[in-house]
Amino acid sequence: MGSVTVYGPPISPAVSRVLACLLEKDVVFNLVNIDMSKAQHKSPDFLKIQPFGQVPAFQDEHTTLFESRAICRYICDKYADRGNRSLLGRRGGGLVERAHVEQWLEAEGQSFNPPSSTLVFQLAFAPQMGLPQDPAAIVLNEGKLAKVLDVYERQLQESRFLAGDEFSLADLSHLPNSHYIRAGGKEELFTSRKHVARWWEEISMRPSWQKVVEMQRTPPA
Amino acid sequence: MGSVTVYGPPISPAVSRVLACLLEKDVVFNLVNIDMSKAQHKSPDFLKIQPFGQVPAFQDEHTTLFESRAICRYICDKYADRGNRSLLGRRGGGLVERAHVEQWLEAEGQSFNPPSSTLVFQLAFAPQMGLPQDPAAIVLNEGKLAKVLDVYERQLQESRFLAGDEFSLADLSHLPNSHYIRAGGKEELFTSRKHVARWWEEISMRPSWQKVVEMQRTPPA
Repeated sequence: MGSVTVYGPPISPAVSRVLACLLEKDVVFNLVNIDMSKAQHKSPDFLKIQPFGQVPAFQDEHTTLFESRAICRYICDKYADRGNRSLLGRRGGGLVERAHVEQWLEAEGQSFNPPSSTLVFQLAFAPQMGLPQDPAAIVLNEGKLAKVLDVYERQLQESRFLAGDEFSLADLSHLPNSHYIRAGGKEELFTSRKHVARWWEEISMRPSWQKVVEMQRTPPA
Repeated sequence: MGSVTVYGPPISPAVSRVLACLLEKDVVFNLVNIDMSKAQHKSPDFLKIQPFGQVPAFQDEHTTLFESRAICRYICDKYADRGNRSLLGRRGGGLVERAHVEQWLEAEGQSFNPPSSTLVFQLAFAPQMGLPQDPAAIVLNEGKLAKVLDVYERQLQESRFLAGDEFSLADLSHLPNSHYIRAGGKEELFTSRKHVARWWEEISMRPSWQKVVEMQRTPPA
């Protein structure tokens, strides 16, 4: 096995973001399950590598990191010559191309993620945990997400992917939450927008993401 | 004047993040005010460079960008040899040092920013706009922010700055919201934590940030 270890369950959106990135980059990794129902993410040992008590945590030889988007950037920089080489912009694309990926990766983190995370919790995790759904929160965040997707629709009319003609970390970062929102019965947010629908079909059919979905369906060892 | 233009009012936290970065990097820039009270950020021309209708937007010759943290990364990469050279990790620090900056910059964006943004609105902007404050929202987000700052306290006991011994973009990115929260009467969130207090004193006294505060006090031309 390689030197890379991911700590956390694949069903976590943030964990699955890192797994998709590692698979795109053809980086071999170990996956150590963290049983959140047993509060393993709040244990003293885990807090040493993830002080917020969240998943994932990440280790590559002597380097430990947290925050899924920071981990993804590190993987792309460290393993620049392996697998998909254009996740942070094409090698010859220079810093402007990287900046366009960063711009849409930040749009994901700042505009797409807040409402979509709430929807993921309400639509997917609350029912699994036996918690009641909050219909007002669903309506409110569906509205917020719709406005974000309206901007994406205009962008995706201009270019095949968010940051240009190549699939990048900016697109990849949208996969986890979008997957749960669609599975939770809100496909229409995506299918009602022509270019967003086309984009989702293309990015979600990538072998890397299909493999992550398969891992999510497999109970942890 | 240089080729760099920032669009947006300095009183906006996201605009001031970019200004602080440009000042650290000794990059000359033009500042174009966007009068949000006249909805200039929703005008068709502005939406061409900032499709979400938010501030700031940024231009450097033919490159336009949005999202303050993405703009800051671009400035650091483009003007690598100017001004402060360790905002994304020291030049010889390699990708692990950059990854540690990215990790804490993401912690700012994902953990610190959500509760602190709400507090900034409630404590600073709502009174200015003649809107009533929401005491429950203040209490809730103060509690959330306190938990984040508890993690920072432990980190800042280990190192002078969040990502190590050098001031970085991760520290800089906390200045705008922290400034308003302190000015809004909630200094204690910072002063009650020994290492957070020491850190805040050091980062807020930097000439770059002092200059931004001065710009915030100057009415737009």
